[in-house]
Amino acid sequence: MTSLTLKNVRPMAGALTDLYIRDGRFADSAPEGAEVIDGGGRIVIPGLVEAHTHLDKSLLGLPWYRNEVGPRLIDKITNEREVKVALGLDPQVQSERQAILSMSHGTTQIRSHVDVDTHHGLAGIEGVMATREKLAGLVEIEIVVFPQSSMMPRLGTLELMDEALALGAEVVGGIDPCGIDRDPKGHLDAVFALAEKHGKPVDIHLHERDALGGFSMEEIIARTKALGMQGKVTISHAFCLGALDRGYVAGLQDQLAEQRIHIVTTAPASAPVPLVKELRAAGILTGAGSDGIRDTWGPYGNADMLERAMFIGLRNNLRRDDEVELALDICTFGGAAIMETEGYGLGPGDRADCVLVEGETLAEAVALRAPRPLVLKGGRVIARNGTCVIEAP
Amino acid sequence: MTSLTLKNVRPMAGALTDLYIRDGRFADSAPEGAEVIDGGGRIVIPGLVEAHTHLDKSLLGLPWYRNEVGPRLIDKITNEREVKVALGLDPQVQSERQAILSMSHGTTQIRSHVDVDTHHGLAGIEGVMATREKLAGLVEIEIVVFPQSSMMPRLGTLELMDEALALGAEVVGGIDPCGIDRDPKGHLDAVFALAEKHGKPVDIHLHERDALGGFSMEEIIARTKALGMQGKVTISHAFCLGALDRGYVAGLQDQLAEQRIHIVTTAPASAPVPLVKELRAAGILTGAGSDGIRDTWGPYGNADMLERAMFIGLRNNLRRDDEVELALDICTFGGAAIMETEGYGLGPGDRADCVLVEGETLAEAVALRAPRPLVLKGGRVIARNGTCVIEAP
Ligand SMILES: [Zn+2]
Ligand SMILES: [Zn+2]
Repeated sequence: MTSLTLKNVRPMAGALTDLYIRDGRFADSAPEGAEVIDGGGRIVIPGLVEAHTHLDKSLLGLPWYRNEVGPRLIDKITNEREVKVALGLDPQVQSERQAILSMSHGTTQIRSHVDVDTHHGLAGIEGVMATREKLAGLVEIEIVVFPQSSMMPRLGTLELMDEALALGAEVVGGIDPCGIDRDPKGHLDAVFALAEKHGKPVDIHLHERDALGGFSMEEIIARTKALGMQGKVTISHAFCLGALDRGYVAGLQDQLAEQRIHIVTTAPASAPVPLVKELRAAGILTGAGSDGIRDTWGPYGNADMLERAMFIGLRNNLRRDDEVELALDICTFGGAAIMETEGYGLGPGDRADCVLVEGETLAEAVALRAPRPLVLKGGRVIARNGTCVIEAP
Repeated sequence: MTSLTLKNVRPMAGALTDLYIRDGRFADSAPEGAEVIDGGGRIVIPGLVEAHTHLDKSLLGLPWYRNEVGPRLIDKITNEREVKVALGLDPQVQSERQAILSMSHGTTQIRSHVDVDTHHGLAGIEGVMATREKLAGLVEIEIVVFPQSSMMPRLGTLELMDEALALGAEVVGGIDPCGIDRDPKGHLDAVFALAEKHGKPVDIHLHERDALGGFSMEEIIARTKALGMQGKVTISHAFCLGALDRGYVAGLQDQLAEQRIHIVTTAPASAPVPLVKELRAAGILTGAGSDGIRDTWGPYGNADMLERAMFIGLRNNLRRDDEVELALDICTFGGAAIMETEGYGLGPGDRADCVLVEGETLAEAVALRAPRPLVLKGGRVIARNGTCVIEAP
């Protein structure tokens, strides 16, 4: 395990100090004879947390994919399933490419939804697991078993999900119980049954809007309560919390808070979104993610969670410094808490996962999004000046 | 004037070719004895067009400004007027800093709204005019006389605007005739009277939403028609075109198209926006801008119009390649047409204002937003590898 002294840094933009790292964790005193790195007075924050992405399906490193896909959600899902075959996409290679890009920007832990379907079976899960193994000690990857192509209508999917969880995937996924699965009771009963059977948390994609999304959300809330799964359930996207009827939304948010259900947002500019200041006020733990990065769904995304904090700021109209700091908190402490990360932070005993960022203040770091001078994982240097120490395949 | 051969480039991502530049313009044949630059097979596009910004008020190059401003529009306007004095902001220096940042990203022409008010008089106008002089031949700057602090309620503002136009400002500005000026008839009559007197076009900030913005827009349309100013009027922001009632919006858009009124958008993520595909379908000329960059209004912005194209894409949910190309078209040809730029393009006789961009296709160039390898203005190199040849003050 790595020992190190990180000199001249400003934890969370506070006073200048030295940080000591012993055996991969922050320590109270300097480790003897260890390497010293000078932080040049820069801000240090804990490792950025990518709490929602899809490592298995990025097209990074491949020739440009010309997107001519139709406008409906189902067009994108069907197209992707077919293109994966046509391009011969290798989930191991693609997930390694994206994970390395994440590390270059200061991300030290990733929650990835990974497709499971009757076309591709567990190929995605196995690929991302191989990458997780390959990058062990450099970045943490948590796998959500994700029925992208639907679960109930595609017989055999549920069994594959069960198998993936037995193989070591950490989280049970789900998707639009009404909009995609067309059987909200069946879908959610099955998702929560898997969670009970394997003793695993849940993270459900919920794109459904307005009253439809609210209905599915209420069903998720009811099951969380019935099974005593408080603190173990996350809803990703939760576009219904961006509905115009704010009284209705406030009611939903109260119930989410009561059942300690978490929200993960990508802060999309073109969809209704949960308002992060409201979530904070309601006491709902909030994380953030990039979602798909340069895939068959769309061309955007660079895996930079500091840029994601800016997107959260822009989408939520956060302009004051304290507001921008909330956006960054969501991309660090929020995601880490949702992933139940042990020892996340910059205090003695915490894991030495941290990033140097450019800027005078945290808000400036978010606005600038300059290349990260240094990224440490367990005290080990994983990136310098925006470049990962590992080369992508 | 500059002559040059730009070898191995792909105009608009088309076939590989050489471009010839003679006396600052693209030419049919190679200029003898001129310098040769190898484009390395990269895409070349015409210079990016920043069609809406505020060069006089950026805080670039100053210590970080901690934003603790209130939430209302009027809080931001009042705060800014006061902070300008407190910080001793020099509009010449600030506008030069921002213009140089723009150039580094490939922008070759800028329309800047510049504050005129009874506190600061013409200091902003004079400062930006001095920068325009200083950077002549390197970047074009067009000045909109902008009554940021209101016009009708602040006696003396109109006279200052008149003076600024006489000094050589090119466009008459205006702002929220109802929401800020509280006198739509008075405000718009005065704006259009100035336009008539000086024979100048109009560009009005319109943040007003829904029916209120629609009312002001109808008043702008009526005056455009009455004065025969078709093609000479731009509405910036036009948030009312993002209203939910799309039938109402379609009616407004038909009238805008009839009077050839242009729209400039910044594609904000947290406000309703005109939908660029609808504007295109309605035949309304559309440009884009960064709006304020790192100022007292907010911390964001980097003057990169390729990033702005991405923001337009994200805000309008543009995912297909042809859709992303529309976003880029708005940040190039759209803005140039609104500014009535003579000889804009890559054809023989056009001004040799162009940018090399990274990426296999135009959509990839937008998604990547990589540093621009080369920027030419009238055939002269103004930036290389993301750095302007002029150092900022
Ligand atoms: Zn997702
Ligand atoms: Zn503006």
